[in-house]
Amino acid sequence: MRRILKGNTKTISSAVIKRLPRYRRYLNELKKKNVDRISSNELSNLIGYTASQIRQDLNNFGGFGQQGYGYNVESLYNEISAILGLDQEYRMIIVGTGNLGQAIANYTYYFKSGFIVSAMFDVNPKLIGVRINDIEVFDYDMLDEYLKDKDIDIGIVCTNKASAQEVVDKMCAGGIKGIWNFAPMDLIVNEGIALENVHLSDSLHSLAYYINRNSQQSQKKD
Amino acid sequence: MRRILKGNTKTISSAVIKRLPRYRRYLNELKKKNVDRISSNELSNLIGYTASQIRQDLNNFGGFGQQGYGYNVESLYNEISAILGLDQEYRMIIVGTGNLGQAIANYTYYFKSGFIVSAMFDVNPKLIGVRINDIEVFDYDMLDEYLKDKDIDIGIVCTNKASAQEVVDKMCAGGIKGIWNFAPMDLIVNEGIALENVHLSDSLHSLAYYINRNSQQSQKKD
Repeated sequence: MRRILKGNTKTISSAVIKRLPRYRRYLNELKKKNVDRISSNELSNLIGYTASQIRQDLNNFGGFGQQGYGYNVESLYNEISAILGLDQEYRMIIVGTGNLGQAIANYTYYFKSGFIVSAMFDVNPKLIGVRINDIEVFDYDMLDEYLKDKDIDIGIVCTNKASAQEVVDKMCAGGIKGIWNFAPMDLIVNEGIALENVHLSDSLHSLAYYINRNSQQSQKKD
Repeated sequence: MRRILKGNTKTISSAVIKRLPRYRRYLNELKKKNVDRISSNELSNLIGYTASQIRQDLNNFGGFGQQGYGYNVESLYNEISAILGLDQEYRMIIVGTGNLGQAIANYTYYFKSGFIVSAMFDVNPKLIGVRINDIEVFDYDMLDEYLKDKDIDIGIVCTNKASAQEVVDKMCAGGIKGIWNFAPMDLIVNEGIALENVHLSDSLHSLAYYINRNSQQSQKKD
């Protein structure tokens, strides 16, 4: 990570943090459409949060809106980007080079600048030495050494359940600052290391719930 | 979908629904370790939610715990599975057969029984006719007809932003009951159709925030 954000470090609820990337996405779309400013009400219509929720969320960061003017789209976008730390560069590695690891390696162009995968690791001899999206796959045995040599910010865990905690322990010991976990389990990380889970099956199971609920409701109406 | 769950349809908050798959994962681990019963306090130590949160969550469904006994692991697991609709089968299709679509197709073994990908669709002539994890890739032009013929429950959107809404409109018109969206945008679905988003870049951006916050806090301590 090349630069550390200055600013206040008051604790902001994780619910607000979860919403910020979404604000940023919508602001980016507005920017592309050359929209200069937007009120919390207009933003509410777009994003689906209430206007008061939006004002409250953005007030957490000192409030960028002005009464009667609304928010300046570009500066709000830039502020949120800076709050999220997206004005910096992150070096990442992927451990586990199966389908999901490969998809993530290929998917990084979506993340645009700022997130760079510098290496991948696997135990499978058939994959070691292969390049995926021009990223070399190294032997998993070299992970400790690699982390000692390089300044890596984010470790992406795409292994199976059985290996995930061991991988994370190595990443923590190697000075990684954040873990992006795709293994279908909850991991233990050292204090001060950020952890973000993408539990795909949890998401699919929630979807199943809503499908059933909707079916029940429409049966009731019939 | 082969069978519709009976039971009450009172509205349960989406926050509770989001936690249920996690409860289920931990209960599954306990089952594998032959644990028969567990108190809300023990469950709290494992999962990290407070015991009172756990009791409150599970009370939403009529409360399966017994004072002084705790929860029966297997029956709680089965109940949560049934609430989520995981005692049923879902037929799915994937539209967009790039890296992410292929990863999802290959990843489905994680979802175990119950979620079956029956076809994939793409516009790329090089991919049409190919089989991925034994699932055939069809021409996207055939999507409408396929949906008319088959009883598909879930549409998985793995296209780029530009195509995603059109794909979803076709899925909704074709009688799909739920959308699992991986495109980095928010989609509009017809009323009564469930939508679950996996916004990978939002998740990565949240991680960046926490990495920065932690760095600031440790700098303060120094």
